Amino acid sequence: MIVVMRPDATKQEVQHVVKLIRDLELTEHIIEGSDLTVVAVIGDDRKKDGSVLEQAPGVDRVMKVLAPYKMAAKETREGKKTLVDIGGGCVFGGKHVPVIAGPCSVEDEDKIMVAARAVKAAGAHALRGGAFKPRTNPYAFQGHGENGLKMLAAARAETGLPIVTEVLTPSEVDMVSEYADCLQIGTRNSQNYKLLEACGKQPKPVLFKRGMAMTIDEWLQASEYILAAGNPNVILCERGIRTFEDHTRNTLSLSVVPELQFRTHLPIVIDPSHGTGHARLVPAMAKAAIAAGCDGLAIEMHQDPQHALTDGAQSITPEVLTELMGSLQRVAQAVDKDCSPGLACAAQAGAR
Amino acid sequence: MIVVMRPDATKQEVQHVVKLIRDLELTEHIIEGSDLTVVAVIGDDRKKDGSVLEQAPGVDRVMKVLAPYKMAAKETREGKKTLVDIGGGCVFGGKHVPVIAGPCSVEDEDKIMVAARAVKAAGAHALRGGAFKPRTNPYAFQGHGENGLKMLAAARAETGLPIVTEVLTPSEVDMVSEYADCLQIGTRNSQNYKLLEACGKQPKPVLFKRGMAMTIDEWLQASEYILAAGNPNVILCERGIRTFEDHTRNTLSLSVVPELQFRTHLPIVIDPSHGTGHARLVPAMAKAAIAAGCDGLAIEMHQDPQHALTDGAQSITPEVLTELMGSLQRVAQAVDKDCSPGLACAAQAGAR
Amino acid sequence: MIVVMRPDATKQEVQHVVKLIRDLELTEHIIEGSDLTVVAVIGDDRKKDGSVLEQAPGVDRVMKVLAPYKMAAKETREGKKTLVDIGGGCVFGGKHVPVIAGPCSVEDEDKIMVAARAVKAAGAHALRGGAFKPRTNPYAFQGHGENGLKMLAAARAETGLPIVTEVLTPSEVDMVSEYADCLQIGTRNSQNYKLLEACGKQPKPVLFKRGMAMTIDEWLQASEYILAAGNPNVILCERGIRTFEDHTRNTLSLSVVPELQFRTHLPIVIDPSHGTGHARLVPAMAKAAIAAGCDGLAIEMHQDPQHALTDGAQSITPEVLTELMGSLQRVAQAVDKDCSPGLACAAQAGAR
Amino acid sequence: MIVVMRPDATKQEVQHVVKLIRDLELTEHIIEGSDLTVVAVIGDDRKKDGSVLEQAPGVDRVMKVLAPYKMAAKETREGKKTLVDIGGGCVFGGKHVPVIAGPCSVEDEDKIMVAARAVKAAGAHALRGGAFKPRTNPYAFQGHGENGLKMLAAARAETGLPIVTEVLTPSEVDMVSEYADCLQIGTRNSQNYKLLEACGKQPKPVLFKRGMAMTIDEWLQASEYILAAGNPNVILCERGIRTFEDHTRNTLSLSVVPELQFRTHLPIVIDPSHGTGHARLVPAMAKAAIAAGCDGLAIEMHQDPQHALTDGAQSITPEVLTELMGSLQRVAQAVDKDCSPGLACAAQAGAR
Repeated sequence: MIVVMRPDATKQEVQHVVKLIRDLELTEHIIEGSDLTVVAVIGDDRKKDGSVLEQAPGVDRVMKVLAPYKMAAKETREGKKTLVDIGGGCVFGGKHVPVIAGPCSVEDEDKIMVAARAVKAAGAHALRGGAFKPRTNPYAFQGHGENGLKMLAAARAETGLPIVTEVLTPSEVDMVSEYADCLQIGTRNSQNYKLLEACGKQPKPVLFKRGMAMTIDEWLQASEYILAAGNPNVILCERGIRTFEDHTRNTLSLSVVPELQFRTHLPIVIDPSHGTGHARLVPAMAKAAIAAGCDGLAIEMHQDPQHALTDGAQSITPEVLTELMGSLQRVAQAVDKDCSPGLACAAQAGAR
Repeated sequence: MIVVMRPDATKQEVQHVVKLIRDLELTEHIIEGSDLTVVAVIGDDRKKDGSVLEQAPGVDRVMKVLAPYKMAAKETREGKKTLVDIGGGCVFGGKHVPVIAGPCSVEDEDKIMVAARAVKAAGAHALRGGAFKPRTNPYAFQGHGENGLKMLAAARAETGLPIVTEVLTPSEVDMVSEYADCLQIGTRNSQNYKLLEACGKQPKPVLFKRGMAMTIDEWLQASEYILAAGNPNVILCERGIRTFEDHTRNTLSLSVVPELQFRTHLPIVIDPSHGTGHARLVPAMAKAAIAAGCDGLAIEMHQDPQHALTDGAQSITPEVLTELMGSLQRVAQAVDKDCSPGLACAAQAGAR
Repeated sequence: MIVVMRPDATKQEVQHVVKLIRDLELTEHIIEGSDLTVVAVIGDDRKKDGSVLEQAPGVDRVMKVLAPYKMAAKETREGKKTLVDIGGGCVFGGKHVPVIAGPCSVEDEDKIMVAARAVKAAGAHALRGGAFKPRTNPYAFQGHGENGLKMLAAARAETGLPIVTEVLTPSEVDMVSEYADCLQIGTRNSQNYKLLEACGKQPKPVLFKRGMAMTIDEWLQASEYILAAGNPNVILCERGIRTFEDHTRNTLSLSVVPELQFRTHLPIVIDPSHGTGHARLVPAMAKAAIAAGCDGLAIEMHQDPQHALTDGAQSITPEVLTELMGSLQRVAQAVDKDCSPGLACAAQAGAR
Repeated sequence: MIVVMRPDATKQEVQHVVKLIRDLELTEHIIEGSDLTVVAVIGDDRKKDGSVLEQAPGVDRVMKVLAPYKMAAKETREGKKTLVDIGGGCVFGGKHVPVIAGPCSVEDEDKIMVAARAVKAAGAHALRGGAFKPRTNPYAFQGHGENGLKMLAAARAETGLPIVTEVLTPSEVDMVSEYADCLQIGTRNSQNYKLLEACGKQPKPVLFKRGMAMTIDEWLQASEYILAAGNPNVILCERGIRTFEDHTRNTLSLSVVPELQFRTHLPIVIDPSHGTGHARLVPAMAKAAIAAGCDGLAIEMHQDPQHALTDGAQSITPEVLTELMGSLQRVAQAVDKDCSPGLACAAQAGAR
C-alpha cells in the first residue's frame, strides 16, 4: 500500500498515518517528494482493510501495491501452468485447445442426444448444456434440473464426450457434481461466494465465468475462493463484459488472454457466444481467441437455432461448427497450438 | 417485438419470419416502409425467446417493445405506490424518508451497541450491520454469522430500531429472517435467483440492491423473482454502478430515482456510501438523493472509521451523521418530503 | 510515480529501473517490502512519460502519484474558489447558483426571442442557444452560424440576459467571442486541444463540458489547456458520461460535484438535460444537483418541445422551468445557497 | 421509427402522436397489440429529430429503426468492399492485410529514419509517426509540427514506405495533406466534425479512429461527414474503448471487425497498441485481429521504448515487430488472407 498525502499535509498528519499503519500491525516508510509526501506500507496488507487510512486527515488517497490474490498468482507455481483434465482426454492449459460445444439448455432427451452427436461429429471435445438455467426473466424456461443432468449423462454414455454444466446454488453442488465432468459457475454467480466455496469442496473441475463487471483482480480473487477451499482445478472463462457498446450483447475482451497468462497459472477459456450474442460474430471471434493464445473455447451450438428455447440468437448450427473446427485448427497451428478434432488426437496433443 | 428486416430482404425471407412468429404462437403485422420492412409481433412475447428470429435470413435485428417485467410495473398497482413497513414506524414509499444507518459489519457486541445508540441519537430510523459479509477478498473478515444476528437483535431490543441485514445464500434465509426486520440482498447476489426466490418465500421485507452492471429492466425483472414468489415488500436500492470513473468506488446514478418512479410502484432507497466509496462525498450525495425524490437512504456509519474492519473509507462518523440528519430534513422539506428524526415522528409522517 | 517490481525481480532489474529514472532527470528511492520491491520516483514527473518504465524487465506496473494538473488544483489558489462573472450579474462559484436556460439551437429570430423572454420571466439568469451545432448526424440541422449569434445578441439586448453559446473550431473562436458572454466547449470537443488553446487566448469565460468518457483527472488536465493559455475563467460542466445504462442518454454523475470541490478551485455546473436525455427527469436531477452543492445549472428549455428542431426530448417547457425555479430556490436555501430568480438578486447574493 | 405508447395511453394520445408524425412530413401506421399500441413511422426519418415524439403525452419511448448512416452502409455499394490505396502498393480492404508501424511521435530526424528502416526491414507496409500530437497533458511534448512532416517525407523518400500521420485541426489539413499519404484523425477528434469535413475535402485517404466512447452507429455516422464531403477513401480504425477494465489502457473490442463487415463497405484496421497500452499484449492482439478478419493493423514500434518521448509503454521493439510479421503471415494464411512482408508482395496480393 502507498498512502499519498495531500500537498499541504502537516507533519502531524503524516505521524497520525504512521500510527494507523502500526495499529494494523504493519510498518511504514516515509518518502518526502518534491511536491508531496507518500508513506509506503511494509508488510502483507492483503488481509487488512487499508482503505481506512483514507479517513485520516491530510490523506489524498491510498493505492494498493500487492495483487489481492495469492494462490492464483503465476509466481505460486513458479510460472508452471495448471493443467485441468476434465476427462475423456480433454485437458485445458496445454498445447491442445479443447472446444466445448452444445446447446444453451438441455431441452429434451432427443434434442440433447442429437446435439451431442453433432458436437462429436464436428470434432469438438466436450459437451455443454444447461440443466439449471439462471434466467433474467423469472417467467422464462428454467431448465429440467436433475432430469436434465440425466439426459447429459446419457449423451456422454453414447458419445464419450465429457460434460460441462452449470450449478446455481450450494445445495445443488453435490448433485451436479455427481453427473458432470466439469461444473460451470456462471457470470451472475461470479461473486456468490458461498457457491464458489461449495464448488471448491467437491472434486470436479470448475469452469469459472467472469462476472460481467469484474476486473481481472476481482476475478482472480474470486477464483481464490475455489482454490482456497481445496480445488486446484479452476478454468477461467471470459464471456464478455458490460460496456456502452450495443452492437453486441456484451463486449468480448480478448486482451484478458495475454494478461491472464502474465498474471496466473490457471487456464483461460473464451466464450464467443455470450461474448457477442450474435451467431454471425461467433466464428470470427473464436478464431481470434485461438490466435490470442487461449486455452479453450466454449461455443453454443443448436441444431435448430430458430426454434431454440434459449439463446437462439447466438447459437451456431452443426454445419457452421464443423467448418469452424477446421478453421480453428489452421489458426491454432499458426500460433503453435493444436486444435485437432476428436479426443484421441486431443489426448495425444495434450501428452506432448 | 419488432423484427427489422435488412433493406435487401426478400419477400420469402419476410414470409419465413412470419412462419417463425407463428411457431411461437404469436401473430404478426407486416409494415412496408420506404427503406425497409418491419414485422411487428402481436401478443405477449415475454415468456418466449424472440431473439431466435434474429437467426432468420434477411433479419437485421429484433427490438423488444414490452417491458420484461409485469408485477413490478407501475400500471399493476394503477400508479399507487407500494408502502413497505419494516417495523418500528419505519415505512418506505410515503412522505417520510427513513434513514438506515450503521456499520458495514457487526464487529462485536459492544461496538454494535455503541453504533446503534449513535444511530438512534442522530435521529436515524433503522440500524444496518452485516453479520454475513460477501467479501471480494477470501482472506478478509467474513462476519460473525448467527452470533452477529444476535448482537443486532440485542441492539434492537435496547434502541427500538428495526434492523436491516444481509443474507447470502438460500439455506440461511430462514435464520436471518428470524432475527432481521428487513433482509438485504447485496449487489453481488442481485442475479442469484435461488436466493431471490428464497427471500420471496419468507415474510420479511427485502432491501434489494442493484447489481453493479444491471440495467433498470434487468433490476425490475430480478425483483420480480421476489414478488412472484409471494413477497410484495420489495425496496429497491441503488448503490452505484460500475463505469470507467475512478474517482469513486462506483458511479452513483441518481437519475434512477425519477425513472423508477415513472416505471414501478416499488420504493427506492439510495446508498451513497457504496455509491461513492469515500466518506467525504457521502453527505452531498445523501442530500442530492433526497432532493431527487428518493424514498429512503442507507448510510454507513462507524464510531471509529479509521479502525473499522470493513469499508472504513466510506463510513461517516456519528457526528457527521447527526449534522447530516438536520440537513436532510431541510432538503426534504424543500421538496415536500419529511425526514424528521426519530421513529415517533416518522410514524406520524408516514400516516399522513 | 511508484514503480512496482514483480515479486521475482532481480537486483539488476531494480538497478536498471534506477538508471532509467535518472535518465529522466529524476531521482529514486528504493523500498524493499515483504513481498516485493517498489521504487519511488522523486521529482516533478508530470512532463515526462514515466510509463516507459513499464518496459523495463522485472517491472509489474507504474502508478502515478502526482495529480497531472497544476493550475486547476485547489492548492494553487490556497483553497480559494474562482469566481467566474459572465456579465449581467451572473457569477459562478459564489453563494448564488445561476441557472442558464434556453433552447438547444437558435431556430429563428422570433423563436429565440420568445425563448429569451420565457427564460427571463421564469427567473433564470443566462440564456443558452446553439448557433453552431455539432450534430452526430451529418444530414441534421447544423445551426445558423453567425446569423444565429446575431439573433442571440438581439435577445440579450432586449432581456439583459448574458448569452452562452458553443464554439466548434479555432477559426471561429474570435467571431463567437465577439457576440457571446461565455463560450461553450462541448463534450465532443473536450479533447480538441487546439480549440481549448484558442479559447484560452480570448477574453470571455468558458463553459467547458466534460467529455463523455473523461475521467476527472483528464478533465482537469484538459481545462489546463485553457488556463495555461491565459484565461482563468473556466467553468466546468458535467453533462453525463457514457455507461452501459440505457434508460438515460447519458449517466449524470453528480458525485463529481463534491469531488471537484475537493480537487479544484473552478466552479462546477450541472447539465441535467444532456445528463438524462428525457425532460421528465430534468427537474429531479436539477434539484439534486443543487443539493449536491453545484455552482450553477444549464437547462434546455423550449416553448414547443414537440416541434423542436433538436433535442426536443430533453427540453422542458417554460411552465416547467418557472415552477422549477421556485423549487430550486427552496432546495438552495436548505443547503445554504441561493438561487433567487432574476439577476438583480443574483448580483446581490454574489456580492455577499 | 417506432413510437411505443404506454399501456394506459388513450386514443386521443395516439391521435396526437399521429398529428406530430404528420407535422414531420412522415406518415404513420398504428398497430394495436395485446398489451399496448405502437405507432410505426413510415418514411425517411433520418434528417428529423423524431425524439421529440417522446414528449407527447402517453408515449413510453421512441425506437429508431433506420441505420443513421447511408453512404457508409454496405448496401450502398451492393456489398462490394471499398479498397483504399494509400500508395506504394499498400491497399486496405483486399486480401492483403497491410501493417502500419512506427513510433508514436516523430522525435527527431535521425530517430525517425532509424525507425523507418526498421519498419521496412521487418516487412511492414507503411510508416506511422506523429508530427502533431494531441497530448492529454498540456505540458507534455506536442510534436515537431511541419518539421516533423518533413522528417517523415525524408523517411519515405529513402524507404518507399507510405506515411500515415495525424492532423489535429482544420487549418492544418492542407499542410498535412501535402506531406502525408494518409491522414489520421485521432480518437479525441472523432467528433470534431469541422475537422472531419476538412479531411473530406482533400484528396488523401483518411484513417479514422473510433472515439473512445463511440457506438458503431455513431462511428459510421461520423465517417459520413468525410464521405459526404467528397472523400470515399475512409479506413476505420478501432483503438479500444473506455470501459471499467483497468488492466489495459482501453478495451480493444475485436468484435467490431465482423460486425463492421456486416454493416459497411469500408475497410477496418485494428490498433492493438492503443487498444491495450502495454507492449507485452500487442503481439497476441495483433494476431487475434488478423484471425478476426481485419483489413490492416496499426502498431507502435520504437527502437528504444524505454527512452521514448511518448507512448513508450505500448511500443514494441523492431525485434518484436520482425518476429511478429512472420506470425501474422501464418495467421493470415490460416484465414485465407495474406500478410506477406514488403510492398512488392503486397501489391501482387492486392491485385489478386
